[in-house]
Amino acid sequence: MEGDSATIHITETPKERKGKAPLLATPPASSSIKPVVQKAPKRGYKRGLAILDVVLRIAGIAAALGAAIAMASTEETLPFFTQFFQFQAQYDDLPAFTFFVIANSITAAYLALSIPISIVCIVRPHLVVPRIILIFLDTVMVALTTAAAGGAASIVYLAHNGNSDANWPAICQQFSDFCQAVSGAVVASFLTVVVLMVLVVLSAFSL
Amino acid sequence: MEGDSATIHITETPKERKGKAPLLATPPASSSIKPVVQKAPKRGYKRGLAILDVVLRIAGIAAALGAAIAMASTEETLPFFTQFFQFQAQYDDLPAFTFFVIANSITAAYLALSIPISIVCIVRPHLVVPRIILIFLDTVMVALTTAAAGGAASIVYLAHNGNSDANWPAICQQFSDFCQAVSGAVVASFLTVVVLMVLVVLSAFSL
Repeated sequence: MEGDSATIHITETPKERKGKAPLLATPPASSSIKPVVQKAPKRGYKRGLAILDVVLRIAGIAAALGAAIAMASTEETLPFFTQFFQFQAQYDDLPAFTFFVIANSITAAYLALSIPISIVCIVRPHLVVPRIILIFLDTVMVALTTAAAGGAASIVYLAHNGNSDANWPAICQQFSDFCQAVSGAVVASFLTVVVLMVLVVLSAFSL
Repeated sequence: MEGDSATIHITETPKERKGKAPLLATPPASSSIKPVVQKAPKRGYKRGLAILDVVLRIAGIAAALGAAIAMASTEETLPFFTQFFQFQAQYDDLPAFTFFVIANSITAAYLALSIPISIVCIVRPHLVVPRIILIFLDTVMVALTTAAAGGAASIVYLAHNGNSDANWPAICQQFSDFCQAVSGAVVASFLTVVVLMVLVVLSAFSL
């Protein structure tokens, strides 16, 4: 068809032919531009999610580090003591609390180390591999932090209420300040868990 | 350029012109076929992941249900008793164990209910919304099950070893069968957690 019209309109000026060529070339050009136009808001949306990701990671570091420090730095010494024994409570009396401090420190360290990967996701929102790595490690950290928080929570509950069936007395009647600090640390740890869960879902959304 | 060649080769037969036209039209045609060819194995890969998803969910139901039943059905009555009191241990003596039974039952029920959504992902591997829903709910279930398993684990540890600082005696010396069954339930629950974590990462891979 196009060849036919060229032979019929042989009297046209070269200028108009030059004007026609771009017209024919236009459709493929516009089709190669369109995806870019459609991608632009999607890329901006992904970049927004990636920035939110970094902000949440910083919040997670604060919560995890707060939980670890609150747990590790709390100790209470009772004002009375016998000749051989002083009544003192601190986190390494209970293995669950020691695990809690270790797990929350690991989570805080991981979150700090994952920020560079998250920044890579801001700079290059289309990369998939860093996101998969982040989802995998975030999920592992959700499990680690939740196990620590759950373990500490059940010990804190026991410390507050005791258990008559197992003959375990409530120790918070004596160590009330210690128990309050420990309860706060557990709450902070559960906050970290929530942040990590939101991170996993955000990364899934970005994919 | 193309218009020029048409005016120069004006003496060519229409046959050869016809032969040329498909040659010019070929690139867009092949580029529209290629993505279909590339999509075919990707869809098969996604379908394979979706089938693995369903299999893992069934394994998760078995583990979670096993953990809940093992914990709920275990009780031990000691062969000696006083006139007013009989020594008996069962899961609802300890709130952490009660939470464990409830959480694992919820997880088993959720996994059973999520199988239809997972089957939708087998039938239509390109759908994104069901996968996002599954990732979100799976992550919530990871947290719930891990909190329950961690809480129960720290109580089981306490039951085995006791704690001299808090003056909590080890009860497993008396209730050894109960402690063994409970430990098994905790291990089964952690297996459920691993299955759920693999499910989250699998869903992320599919996206």
